[in-house]
Amino acid sequence: MSDVNAILLLSCADSKGLVAKISDFIFRHDGNIVHADQHTSKTDKLFFMRIEWELNGFALNREEISIAFAPLAKQFNMKWDLHFTDYVPRIAIFVSRHLHCLHDLILRRHMGELGADVAAVISNHDDARDLVEQFGLKFFHFPVTEKNKKQQEADSLKLLRDMNIDLVVLARYMQILSGHFLEYYPNKIINIHHSFLPAFAGGNPYQQAYDRGVKIIGATGHYVTEQLDEGPIIAQDVIKISHRDAIADIQTKSKDLERVVLARALRLHLENKILVYGSKTIVFD
Amino acid sequence: MSDVNAILLLSCADSKGLVAKISDFIFRHDGNIVHADQHTSKTDKLFFMRIEWELNGFALNREEISIAFAPLAKQFNMKWDLHFTDYVPRIAIFVSRHLHCLHDLILRRHMGELGADVAAVISNHDDARDLVEQFGLKFFHFPVTEKNKKQQEADSLKLLRDMNIDLVVLARYMQILSGHFLEYYPNKIINIHHSFLPAFAGGNPYQQAYDRGVKIIGATGHYVTEQLDEGPIIAQDVIKISHRDAIADIQTKSKDLERVVLARALRLHLENKILVYGSKTIVFD
Amino acid sequence: MSDVNAILLLSCADSKGLVAKISDFIFRHDGNIVHADQHTSKTDKLFFMRIEWELNGFALNREEISIAFAPLAKQFNMKWDLHFTDYVPRIAIFVSRHLHCLHDLILRRHMGELGADVAAVISNHDDARDLVEQFGLKFFHFPVTEKNKKQQEADSLKLLRDMNIDLVVLARYMQILSGHFLEYYPNKIINIHHSFLPAFAGGNPYQQAYDRGVKIIGATGHYVTEQLDEGPIIAQDVIKISHRDAIADIQTKSKDLERVVLARALRLHLENKILVYGSKTIVFD
Amino acid sequence: MSDVNAILLLSCADSKGLVAKISDFIFRHDGNIVHADQHTSKTDKLFFMRIEWELNGFALNREEISIAFAPLAKQFNMKWDLHFTDYVPRIAIFVSRHLHCLHDLILRRHMGELGADVAAVISNHDDARDLVEQFGLKFFHFPVTEKNKKQQEADSLKLLRDMNIDLVVLARYMQILSGHFLEYYPNKIINIHHSFLPAFAGGNPYQQAYDRGVKIIGATGHYVTEQLDEGPIIAQDVIKISHRDAIADIQTKSKDLERVVLARALRLHLENKILVYGSKTIVFD
Repeated sequence: MSDVNAILLLSCADSKGLVAKISDFIFRHDGNIVHADQHTSKTDKLFFMRIEWELNGFALNREEISIAFAPLAKQFNMKWDLHFTDYVPRIAIFVSRHLHCLHDLILRRHMGELGADVAAVISNHDDARDLVEQFGLKFFHFPVTEKNKKQQEADSLKLLRDMNIDLVVLARYMQILSGHFLEYYPNKIINIHHSFLPAFAGGNPYQQAYDRGVKIIGATGHYVTEQLDEGPIIAQDVIKISHRDAIADIQTKSKDLERVVLARALRLHLENKILVYGSKTIVFD
Repeated sequence: MSDVNAILLLSCADSKGLVAKISDFIFRHDGNIVHADQHTSKTDKLFFMRIEWELNGFALNREEISIAFAPLAKQFNMKWDLHFTDYVPRIAIFVSRHLHCLHDLILRRHMGELGADVAAVISNHDDARDLVEQFGLKFFHFPVTEKNKKQQEADSLKLLRDMNIDLVVLARYMQILSGHFLEYYPNKIINIHHSFLPAFAGGNPYQQAYDRGVKIIGATGHYVTEQLDEGPIIAQDVIKISHRDAIADIQTKSKDLERVVLARALRLHLENKILVYGSKTIVFD
Repeated sequence: MSDVNAILLLSCADSKGLVAKISDFIFRHDGNIVHADQHTSKTDKLFFMRIEWELNGFALNREEISIAFAPLAKQFNMKWDLHFTDYVPRIAIFVSRHLHCLHDLILRRHMGELGADVAAVISNHDDARDLVEQFGLKFFHFPVTEKNKKQQEADSLKLLRDMNIDLVVLARYMQILSGHFLEYYPNKIINIHHSFLPAFAGGNPYQQAYDRGVKIIGATGHYVTEQLDEGPIIAQDVIKISHRDAIADIQTKSKDLERVVLARALRLHLENKILVYGSKTIVFD
Repeated sequence: MSDVNAILLLSCADSKGLVAKISDFIFRHDGNIVHADQHTSKTDKLFFMRIEWELNGFALNREEISIAFAPLAKQFNMKWDLHFTDYVPRIAIFVSRHLHCLHDLILRRHMGELGADVAAVISNHDDARDLVEQFGLKFFHFPVTEKNKKQQEADSLKLLRDMNIDLVVLARYMQILSGHFLEYYPNKIINIHHSFLPAFAGGNPYQQAYDRGVKIIGATGHYVTEQLDEGPIIAQDVIKISHRDAIADIQTKSKDLERVVLARALRLHLENKILVYGSKTIVFD
């Protein structure tokens, strides 16, 4: 247990003494805080906190922490989650034909930098199979047609649940997921959109950017909600373009951006640094 | 005439020999080219060029250049403009209540870095008068109401024309100019919009950015056309924000950005580096 | 007292219970924490904290806070400072011939955005006098020669102390301050260096950047220490350049950067968001 | 031959008529220019040009172009190279233990985006073998010791020459190449350095950046010369860091940067957009 930390992510209505009481809870049980970050939204008086402490020397074991913390949580009507840094989440990657983000994630895993197990790669096309299997990962081909769409979604949902998937990553997946599907993974589906949202939401943002003549393009990593491209934004970044950039150049530049932004959004999620708040995120980076 | 250069900005349908014929025109008259930049749009086969050469030693005087170039221009059905680097354009700055961009432009002029004469500052409020006059510049207060709007615009248009204004700068001017007004200054009115267009067009982009929870905000310098916030973009830049930034912080960060982006867009125009092409710009930077 | 906050900036050896005890101190006296940020340096086990709470409703008045907090501070051997958000620091700006940063600070003050009083502008040249006085500020001309350098520094130091200056800003000041001078203002002198430190320390960084052929230039806001250009860095930013940029273009681009970076470093200091730690800074942004 | 272009990269002392004569050469033989970019260095009056035209319809075949252009080149004492866009250069990648850049290049090739053949991967360690061979590429393990260093370099040089390698990429290769080796590949060896050069040249730039407390880190792609880390810079980029970033975080952020910057430098070289000029580059991007 030596190097493992516990992380508490919580939110509630703001109130005097919250920091004191939460940090005292950890201190009383002999915990050593290594990170504490807090935010209070001024307009609606909500309190958000991420606090991380060493399990080593802590008086409570993993099961006892939740039980001991529950009364305080109840008193302030907190929403809260408890995480441990040695847990390796299981992710499923959905992809269609553009494979650069998938490739990037596979290589990060191969280099031991992903912080997650890639339990499954699911695609409506078969293009990625060879590469995925070459790295010893499981590939599932679920071709989607107008007719079988509902059934395919049900099948992939079943697969995810059978495989105990913690997080779904849409690494340029061109199918829209139904509200029913999303309900099973609230704030647990991360999408990369290849524009600087809310600019160029929807289809073909490269073409939209080219047509509008913008001088900068972007990429956005966000949680998926029913309103397409309107989910809470986790990470964004941009790169300059000029009149010399044809659509193909925009695509080349954007792909580098998409890979980095998706990886960053994913890392923030996997390190339990994000609290979702309405349609926005608090990122304790 | 020693250090003065001539600049030719031109566009036409692409055709073999354009670069050769244009550069030969300059060579034949003993000109020394100091910059030449060219762009061909692949999709619609248009040719754009900016070519700059020294007047010193050139066989033609200023008046003769246009006459001598006209036949070539006609042959290829070119749109073209001829500029000289010693001409100091006369600009008018329109402003409302947010004065940071105005201040910035006044100081750049004071430091001798603007490359233009600030012939007039025009505002629908009187707030800026003291500062403007303190720097020896002319200030005009044209209060705008629902009722007098049309007349005020006519008055300010007359003023601009009487003063031989070359370029209008909307440095956070909150009134919309009519199509009639715009016709007098085609691609000669530069606006700074305080968002990363096309995201957050229209009113209150700071609030829109805050509400959407974006992680990056931007500013856009563009030519004004009848479709508000849809004119050809000249320059854009961005800055990161986080959940810690309240509206006031977003405003503070954005103001620094707006000043720099407007100044950059203005400089590109004043150095004759921009060709407008449909709703887009070619910027030979 | 309604909207005033207290800010505690502190550092000490890391120890269990620090967050709990500090936040409990505020809670016990009925304080409402609005910001709390903490950092523990892993390598040398030091603890840093910035905590901000509302004076409104707090059980202690300003004088009592220090007295009440002292025992806790002593117990953990803390270095600590207490600030109040309604205190307006008095700054002195030193400048030589390049006036863009001075201009920028004067305008920010004029717009009510500086968060400080500009009590004095001091220069070894007389160039800035008119502009400074035009804005109702005090200008002091202290010409510096090889011979009078020591005396001039003594005179300006006396002036600063007579005027109760809290913070010195070197806004492109080309004279080197002695160790004796620096002792009076430890971590209270902010310099803007026109390069991306540690690259191009020393004289003429524009020329150095040009000669080296870098593709990006930068600016650095830092505290001044005896080792020139080696003081703790507060803020840095960069901008792209290309082979097309002559020295003059590099200077033009850099000046925009310097203004923004100096203003940002200054703001962070004035908002009491910086803890200096060896030759580095903790910036609770 | 339908879609192939010819590219001429040239430099010489500046002289009147250069653009005219070069573009006329192409026009006379019925060539259609698709890109032309030119630069004149003001200080030492040198002329640089990149001109690209369609072979389709051009009156000269590939062999004839050089012969026909030689007299003009001789007249102006030009240094020049002629390239064709359908030539696929053969590259060799050198790598040591940090494999992120190698992985990135292999995946770009796998996605058909590299614009080059990866003819060989050479390493002083055996770590990368499996991955390299898994993608069907040739891996050569040349372990280097104090004693065999000279022989190993001779062996790898022989290998490169036997394999007709056009370009060497040092993708985090930790061995220093001798001047003898470099002579065989002048401006044909690209290195990625994991800092914002000239800051933090030499060993362990992550640690250097951490110790100095910079707020931004960078990466630099450059040609290799005998003076380590002083070769002509092709591309640079940066990313923000804070006091929260430990060495491991700096490394994680930097690796993303290194991959993108190396890929960008490589692409510029492979697209024949770079002219080296003393210790600097002209990048016609």
